[in-house]
Amino acid sequence: MTASLARRSDSRIILVVLDGVGGLPRGGTTELEAASTPGLDALAREGACGLTIPVLPGVTPGSGPSHLALFGYDPVVHEIERGALEVYGVGQTLDADQIGARGNFCSIDEKGIVRDRRAGRLSTEENSRLCALLSDKIRKVDDVGVQFIPGKEHRLVLLLTGEGLNPMLTDTDPHEEMKHYAACAAVDPRAEKSADVVNRLTEQALSVLRGEKQATGIILRGFSGKPDVPTLRDLHLLTPCAIATYPMYKGIASLVGMDIIDCGNTLLDQVVSLEGVFGRYDFIYFHYKATDMAGEDGDFDRKVRLIEEFDSLVSRIRRLEPDVLAITGDHSTPALMKKHSWHPNPFLLVSPYARADRAVRFTETECSRGCLGTFEAKHAMSLMLAHAGKLEKYGA
Amino acid sequence: MTASLARRSDSRIILVVLDGVGGLPRGGTTELEAASTPGLDALAREGACGLTIPVLPGVTPGSGPSHLALFGYDPVVHEIERGALEVYGVGQTLDADQIGARGNFCSIDEKGIVRDRRAGRLSTEENSRLCALLSDKIRKVDDVGVQFIPGKEHRLVLLLTGEGLNPMLTDTDPHEEMKHYAACAAVDPRAEKSADVVNRLTEQALSVLRGEKQATGIILRGFSGKPDVPTLRDLHLLTPCAIATYPMYKGIASLVGMDIIDCGNTLLDQVVSLEGVFGRYDFIYFHYKATDMAGEDGDFDRKVRLIEEFDSLVSRIRRLEPDVLAITGDHSTPALMKKHSWHPNPFLLVSPYARADRAVRFTETECSRGCLGTFEAKHAMSLMLAHAGKLEKYGA
Repeated sequence: MTASLARRSDSRIILVVLDGVGGLPRGGTTELEAASTPGLDALAREGACGLTIPVLPGVTPGSGPSHLALFGYDPVVHEIERGALEVYGVGQTLDADQIGARGNFCSIDEKGIVRDRRAGRLSTEENSRLCALLSDKIRKVDDVGVQFIPGKEHRLVLLLTGEGLNPMLTDTDPHEEMKHYAACAAVDPRAEKSADVVNRLTEQALSVLRGEKQATGIILRGFSGKPDVPTLRDLHLLTPCAIATYPMYKGIASLVGMDIIDCGNTLLDQVVSLEGVFGRYDFIYFHYKATDMAGEDGDFDRKVRLIEEFDSLVSRIRRLEPDVLAITGDHSTPALMKKHSWHPNPFLLVSPYARADRAVRFTETECSRGCLGTFEAKHAMSLMLAHAGKLEKYGA
Repeated sequence: MTASLARRSDSRIILVVLDGVGGLPRGGTTELEAASTPGLDALAREGACGLTIPVLPGVTPGSGPSHLALFGYDPVVHEIERGALEVYGVGQTLDADQIGARGNFCSIDEKGIVRDRRAGRLSTEENSRLCALLSDKIRKVDDVGVQFIPGKEHRLVLLLTGEGLNPMLTDTDPHEEMKHYAACAAVDPRAEKSADVVNRLTEQALSVLRGEKQATGIILRGFSGKPDVPTLRDLHLLTPCAIATYPMYKGIASLVGMDIIDCGNTLLDQVVSLEGVFGRYDFIYFHYKATDMAGEDGDFDRKVRLIEEFDSLVSRIRRLEPDVLAITGDHSTPALMKKHSWHPNPFLLVSPYARADRAVRFTETECSRGCLGTFEAKHAMSLMLAHAGKLEKYGA
């Protein structure tokens, strides 16, 4: 609905996503509560606070849905197929004449039986070498361009480019070991050309990989076409960019039409990049990955330190004087659980038009006292746009 | 949506529904605030708290919608027809070859005019006698089996069993006194056989009841077929049961696929039953009716005592160590109002993965400080499933 209210303005928004920042208590305090965060706390006192529900109560999101929600999309409506996310996740995009799939290097015996779906968890280096080899040997199948893009360990992405491709295809991955790899079949008659291409390149890959020690074949799953997501430029008349270090987040940002800013790998590199591009964009998505990784590792103390590291730099972000500075998580990753969770995230929004409230720290419990209440993350974008004067009045 | 994320696990959930527990202040304190509840308060401090909106803000629910919501169904989508609820409420079920209706014993004069729609509020005993009489005299109409099931006072349920029945029928209840009872008409051509059966059994009932002093006829309304509600087994892969003493709640529980556990009538009986079956089910719905009845009677002090009675037993429930223990009301029944109301209910959830918050008592005001916020009751099931590890991640 807010798309119809879009209004161009000179104001600037910075959205900082501290990945997986929400936590659960150890000895009575969460990671955020245990951290010393004078910078964030000052912003919490100055701004409006609340808690965001990533998707719906109780629903643990992947990074795709949780980020789409923060960018203002209903994550239940805009379900991005896994194959597409994987393509974007390795830093590629999908155009209208392309389809993609995720896949594995695997061990296939001479009878076509998949002995090990992960080829002994191939090293990432070996994966890169084999993708380069395959891409070199199998450049085209008829008029269809073929690219093999390495992921981590045994994972790869297949990208096909050509006329008349269609992703309504079944997997070649048998999803179980000691089974023959499957023939790709068209679920829709319009996908028959694509099925034929996939089957032929699978055979060709077997030939190319013959004699390799670990990976002797590939299996594919989750074929996807270009996701049908309107861009932030179209929806909200924004000129958006992303400052992120990991391919997955650059991918999602690119999916919604953000420019991807080159930056180094450290948080300081990211802040310096932000300072460099601040004047050129009116919506900047700033992604901090480290907090999530510490949570996934179950490392409470490291997560605390990484939160403190961000806090030490937050004043430099504030100093840019964006019209709206919003800071939140995309989901919780409590060290206690070592994985994503459904728990709501602290959210703070600083702007001359933010109503200050009783929250005095940037923590789960303090933000639950905030005036924004506990709300679904998909509303965060409207709140940012509104505080930046980028939304017209609704109705007369 | 969460149905697609269902994941079987060994974890166990107990949902305690304190019927109508929410209240309004008398002299500054609600029933829950006036009660001494050390057990519930300890759980509130340990767990995550919030307030549940039964259906939508301002909507006062009947027991059907309010329970369906707590069981995870959208009560606006799954509107169970009143006739069906009545059938389940007297402890019967509806199969695919059955239709049911609710009705009244009434006083009908020799010209067919309904003189008293409730036959002078017949006694429940007299009702039972007459239902037995009718069921004995009118066992079948053609090939359709006929059962008359007594409710309270003048209320009864008609249950028809046979091939080709269809509930698209108009009422025989004229809904006003001093009017002739109505002929049942088929709203859909496929219901013509059913209309004929209803009209013939209505005539036969008049014959059977001729000469009775109070009730000389029956009037019927709200014909319903088997409700289209997926079960909790199908939706969430649960093995659920219900520990409830009143037919209505057993009925709703049975409608969503719960096993109904035999138990005595006291709260202690119910707790003993719970202890007995705890190992065999992974979702146990425990219903405490007394609080609602005291509210309906406008008896503030009795409601306080009944809350305290439950509190004295809550530690026995806690001691079973369910992975998730959720306690809430299905709706409020403030003694001040003597009836159901729309006010939100306190909700608490105890689990190793529940984020403790600032709520220190199980009261309306304290739970409003909780980290779960104020949410629609239909989300309670997702929250319970999530905390029990019974939901997969959504998206990549």
